[in-house]
Amino acid sequence: MSTDRPLKVALFGSGRIGQVHARNIAAHPDLELAWIADPFIEGARTLAAGTGAIAVETADEVFANGDLDAVVIGSPTSTHVELISRAMAQGVAALCEKPIDLDIDRALACRDVIKGNNTPLMLGFNRRFDPNFAAIQRRVVAGEIGRLEQLTIISRDPAPAPAAYIATSGGIFRDMSIHDLDMARFFVPDIVEVSAAGANVFCDYIEEAGDFDSVVITLRGRDGELVTITNSRHSAYGYDQRLEAFGSEGMLNANNVAPTTVRKYGAAGAEEADAYLPFFLERYAEAYRNELDSFARAIRSGTACSPGFDDGLQALALANAAEESARSGRAVRIENSVKVENAVKIGQP
Amino acid sequence: MSTDRPLKVALFGSGRIGQVHARNIAAHPDLELAWIADPFIEGARTLAAGTGAIAVETADEVFANGDLDAVVIGSPTSTHVELISRAMAQGVAALCEKPIDLDIDRALACRDVIKGNNTPLMLGFNRRFDPNFAAIQRRVVAGEIGRLEQLTIISRDPAPAPAAYIATSGGIFRDMSIHDLDMARFFVPDIVEVSAAGANVFCDYIEEAGDFDSVVITLRGRDGELVTITNSRHSAYGYDQRLEAFGSEGMLNANNVAPTTVRKYGAAGAEEADAYLPFFLERYAEAYRNELDSFARAIRSGTACSPGFDDGLQALALANAAEESARSGRAVRIENSVKVENAVKIGQP
Amino acid sequence: MSTDRPLKVALFGSGRIGQVHARNIAAHPDLELAWIADPFIEGARTLAAGTGAIAVETADEVFANGDLDAVVIGSPTSTHVELISRAMAQGVAALCEKPIDLDIDRALACRDVIKGNNTPLMLGFNRRFDPNFAAIQRRVVAGEIGRLEQLTIISRDPAPAPAAYIATSGGIFRDMSIHDLDMARFFVPDIVEVSAAGANVFCDYIEEAGDFDSVVITLRGRDGELVTITNSRHSAYGYDQRLEAFGSEGMLNANNVAPTTVRKYGAAGAEEADAYLPFFLERYAEAYRNELDSFARAIRSGTACSPGFDDGLQALALANAAEESARSGRAVRIENSVKVENAVKIGQP
Amino acid sequence: MSTDRPLKVALFGSGRIGQVHARNIAAHPDLELAWIADPFIEGARTLAAGTGAIAVETADEVFANGDLDAVVIGSPTSTHVELISRAMAQGVAALCEKPIDLDIDRALACRDVIKGNNTPLMLGFNRRFDPNFAAIQRRVVAGEIGRLEQLTIISRDPAPAPAAYIATSGGIFRDMSIHDLDMARFFVPDIVEVSAAGANVFCDYIEEAGDFDSVVITLRGRDGELVTITNSRHSAYGYDQRLEAFGSEGMLNANNVAPTTVRKYGAAGAEEADAYLPFFLERYAEAYRNELDSFARAIRSGTACSPGFDDGLQALALANAAEESARSGRAVRIENSVKVENAVKIGQP
Repeated sequence: MSTDRPLKVALFGSGRIGQVHARNIAAHPDLELAWIADPFIEGARTLAAGTGAIAVETADEVFANGDLDAVVIGSPTSTHVELISRAMAQGVAALCEKPIDLDIDRALACRDVIKGNNTPLMLGFNRRFDPNFAAIQRRVVAGEIGRLEQLTIISRDPAPAPAAYIATSGGIFRDMSIHDLDMARFFVPDIVEVSAAGANVFCDYIEEAGDFDSVVITLRGRDGELVTITNSRHSAYGYDQRLEAFGSEGMLNANNVAPTTVRKYGAAGAEEADAYLPFFLERYAEAYRNELDSFARAIRSGTACSPGFDDGLQALALANAAEESARSGRAVRIENSVKVENAVKIGQP
Repeated sequence: MSTDRPLKVALFGSGRIGQVHARNIAAHPDLELAWIADPFIEGARTLAAGTGAIAVETADEVFANGDLDAVVIGSPTSTHVELISRAMAQGVAALCEKPIDLDIDRALACRDVIKGNNTPLMLGFNRRFDPNFAAIQRRVVAGEIGRLEQLTIISRDPAPAPAAYIATSGGIFRDMSIHDLDMARFFVPDIVEVSAAGANVFCDYIEEAGDFDSVVITLRGRDGELVTITNSRHSAYGYDQRLEAFGSEGMLNANNVAPTTVRKYGAAGAEEADAYLPFFLERYAEAYRNELDSFARAIRSGTACSPGFDDGLQALALANAAEESARSGRAVRIENSVKVENAVKIGQP
Repeated sequence: MSTDRPLKVALFGSGRIGQVHARNIAAHPDLELAWIADPFIEGARTLAAGTGAIAVETADEVFANGDLDAVVIGSPTSTHVELISRAMAQGVAALCEKPIDLDIDRALACRDVIKGNNTPLMLGFNRRFDPNFAAIQRRVVAGEIGRLEQLTIISRDPAPAPAAYIATSGGIFRDMSIHDLDMARFFVPDIVEVSAAGANVFCDYIEEAGDFDSVVITLRGRDGELVTITNSRHSAYGYDQRLEAFGSEGMLNANNVAPTTVRKYGAAGAEEADAYLPFFLERYAEAYRNELDSFARAIRSGTACSPGFDDGLQALALANAAEESARSGRAVRIENSVKVENAVKIGQP
Repeated sequence: MSTDRPLKVALFGSGRIGQVHARNIAAHPDLELAWIADPFIEGARTLAAGTGAIAVETADEVFANGDLDAVVIGSPTSTHVELISRAMAQGVAALCEKPIDLDIDRALACRDVIKGNNTPLMLGFNRRFDPNFAAIQRRVVAGEIGRLEQLTIISRDPAPAPAAYIATSGGIFRDMSIHDLDMARFFVPDIVEVSAAGANVFCDYIEEAGDFDSVVITLRGRDGELVTITNSRHSAYGYDQRLEAFGSEGMLNANNVAPTTVRKYGAAGAEEADAYLPFFLERYAEAYRNELDSFARAIRSGTACSPGFDDGLQALALANAAEESARSGRAVRIENSVKVENAVKIGQP
């Protein structure tokens, strides 16, 4: 690629997340949004209009461009494996939204295909780039709270996705908890045991789909760290995204984010804060920018992307293990699950 | 008993917790601290000196008094069953520190002995009387957050008890988590499933004793409520006692308690609060007073004490189930718990 | 006085503040509530009933007792000077509610009368004993924020006193601000300049009484410290009592006090705290206990009471100066006001 | 101007504030940064390099361009009057940093020159666009706290400007407090009385320059509102920018802004927040963007800019009055000061 001009980027997908990436790519000084691909060409065109990008329908039209430097994959999950494979084959850097695939076998097969390929490949676990969580992780690594012993993650969506989405989501563990499982691995990379409990307490159509609306997951790290993840598909007070890292010498935590520091004091109650930022687009706006910037810098510097493909695989393996545990009532040792074992071996030398 | 004079109370035990009760009984307008019993008679005498009570060595000397109205049992756990039985047999109201016994069979036998006896009997789960947790429970019951769906309890001691104590403590689940298990039942009385994970991350002598220094427990309530309890035997920032109740229409939580509202703002950091109240004697000082007052009012009004003997039994059964789960890696079903007695047996081989 | 038995105390006044003192004296291990005096004898009798004290109508009956050790003066302001004088003349320690008198000339005359008398005499500026403000003052004196430069006091009552009370209150500066003026002197004892502004923004009968419902006072200390006091006679969110000490190396502040740490998170807003403690009886309950204890210990140890008579005089002088400034629109140099000058000289050698 | 292309903007000044505006203009979709003017041409060139703007030395070169739509004036205060006048004369919209001039006579003369000119002219009181303060003002106007009665503004710089800057700054009231005086007017537009007190407590060179390092200002609004402003030229814990609006039905306040919600809990203290955003460039980054956007939208819509020229004049008049009061020890009625009277008349019909 040329270092004289910004990197030429193609974006797959013009939906909600595609729009976020489009805006961020356009605003990034070292990235140029050159193409937006979506079979729903009207969406691509609308999005392209404000950015100077060319709207195309197919991946072929994108990959036909010899000066393509990078792709950002925000299209449906079912397209991820193919787009990753094509980008890697062509030596084009890729930032792919999670998950790699809902089927870990397809993800593992993809891994075989790209084995040995050093083209930059980043998985879109955006929360690692949230200023709050990133600051805590940095401070934990720096030893500020001594040895990490316990990690508490609470993550609740404002409201459940519609029934149609739930049906193809892969279930709460692979669709929602996977972000928290990756966050757990951000702090405790080696997880050796997973147990989980699921419940149906408020949403009929989730129950009818055979899925849970509420889950709790416990993870054990290689060094005895205990992690709890609490998820719910709804939250009356808005998007709830908190984390506490407890160590031998102290604790660091991050509260939810409000748009201002304003507090109201009235007859009914005191110190009432503004409602929290409503959902991930607002809460993680800065995280998406930081993620894209990290991707661009990795491309330029030739360093490995983090989180990478294997992080996506590991999170998926943990999600599978959590599902298995929730169904069986048994803690799942990561070593005893064939599929997970494969995934886990990935991270090893 | 006479209603013309305060209730005559005997206190068993002049140790740390006995001293708390002695002070509170002496200050209560409807209670008179008449006797303090301790085989270590010097302790009883010292404590009696400031209160006008008579120091005695044996339970016999206490129960020989015809005008004894109530006993407060703060002596070692191994004495609880006998003292409860004697008090009930004699129609003397009793407030007994938790646990009933470390051995559930002895506790069940005690239950058979006192079956049908309506003498007031209260179990000392003091945290139910903490103004913070009590306020949340009251507001949850009042429907302020809709239907309760998830409960998060974090409970960490400032530092581990000495090795000698650990050896006879019955283990972290029965000694420490039992408070949190009762707190869980304060909000979700019917628990149907328990799973737990234990770890050894910082204390060699706890590991050598075959005990855990850190545990995480997950409970499932009859209506699908999910409860997580996170325990550690140490905490660099002091006694950590927090609780969050999450419901369909909102959330209520209680933070730790500092002695003042003062905050310091300096070059190193902003909004630094005072260190939290150091341990249970300070943190739950008001809870102990409220507990005693509730006991006195139950005696006077003839209403049932809460928490009662069966609450002690249930918490112990949950502690046993948690231990079993942590050892086996399997969730333990508490099913068939029509009667408490049955439920308890479930955890046994 | 005897050191073998608790100090015998007489309480003047059985009103709201008298009841607080009665309860605290009765509960104090070194104080015995022996007499309660009130011309409204029914009030004295009711209050005495629960405490074992003797109810009397007149001061004569109190001072006739040879074993009287101390008096607590909670009767109307107009009786303070006489009761202080009698107690001092008889060598009986006195704790007198503020103010000494609404008329500084009477207060100064009283000072002449008791000049040279070393009998313990304490002025009831209870807020100095509030754990929050006391902690800040202690830490400022200890140098935690370097040299004190600015002090911000916000003090608002929940609702205005009734018109009848306002009429004889002496005005907002002498009745309400005087507490804050003493608090200012707790941190900055030497005040050299006062300016104030008053306004009428919400209460007609206060305006009709020629008084202000809202005031702001600025004080200058001898070393250039600047103090602002903001007062209002009402506050929709309850009793508002806050203080910030700003120094060369940091800041310390105290927020209002809520009964619990509980926070509510709902659709309308997040982190809503409980309503604050409603008014001074609740907010300063611990301060009243600490004040009384300090008084008892000063009597026993023979050390000077703090705050003392001159602190009462100084606060009154500052209140007068503030009123003068609010009326004239001019900053009042403490040296340039005859009456204030006298008051001020009192503190000097 | 053309509505087919972004507005062509020239920026005066390539210093600290010029750089902020350059970045924001470049990023604004409806603004094009066409020229950067600075006699220190190297600064202009460096800044222009990253933006595509043309660097020029003189205002003449800027105003010679027929397609100039707007100017942003971030050059030294002494140039403001001339640049405003030229822009207005040529019908070019202007956003000018505060103050208009340190000399109110020059500012008044400028006002005469531009009288009747409807070209958009905005004064750079950026804090009005801070999301925190703007939210409070909006909610006060919406009646959320009833009638506004008291306003408390605390504003402290992290460290004093160097002696050379202080010498030509016009003094703390005109240089620093002027922002807070405008903030006061954002809530209480009609101020009728000003009193102030200044002190020298920590900085010798400020004292030697005849200026204060610490001041307190009290303002009275036409309807009896009382406003206090507390300023210091230093703050050990960083930039301190807080505001409280107290009304008949409640209170709204804004705390300082930290970069994250992360809190640290350690042995020394609990709930320690990150250091606040260091100074105005960080604290008001969003305010500068919002301000510029408001300017752009006012130009496009043809509506009046707010804050406008007269707001700049009023703030300057209040700063002068505050200085006069601090020197004389008298409250200054806005009507009784000739210069201020002129300023005040400006706002009247």
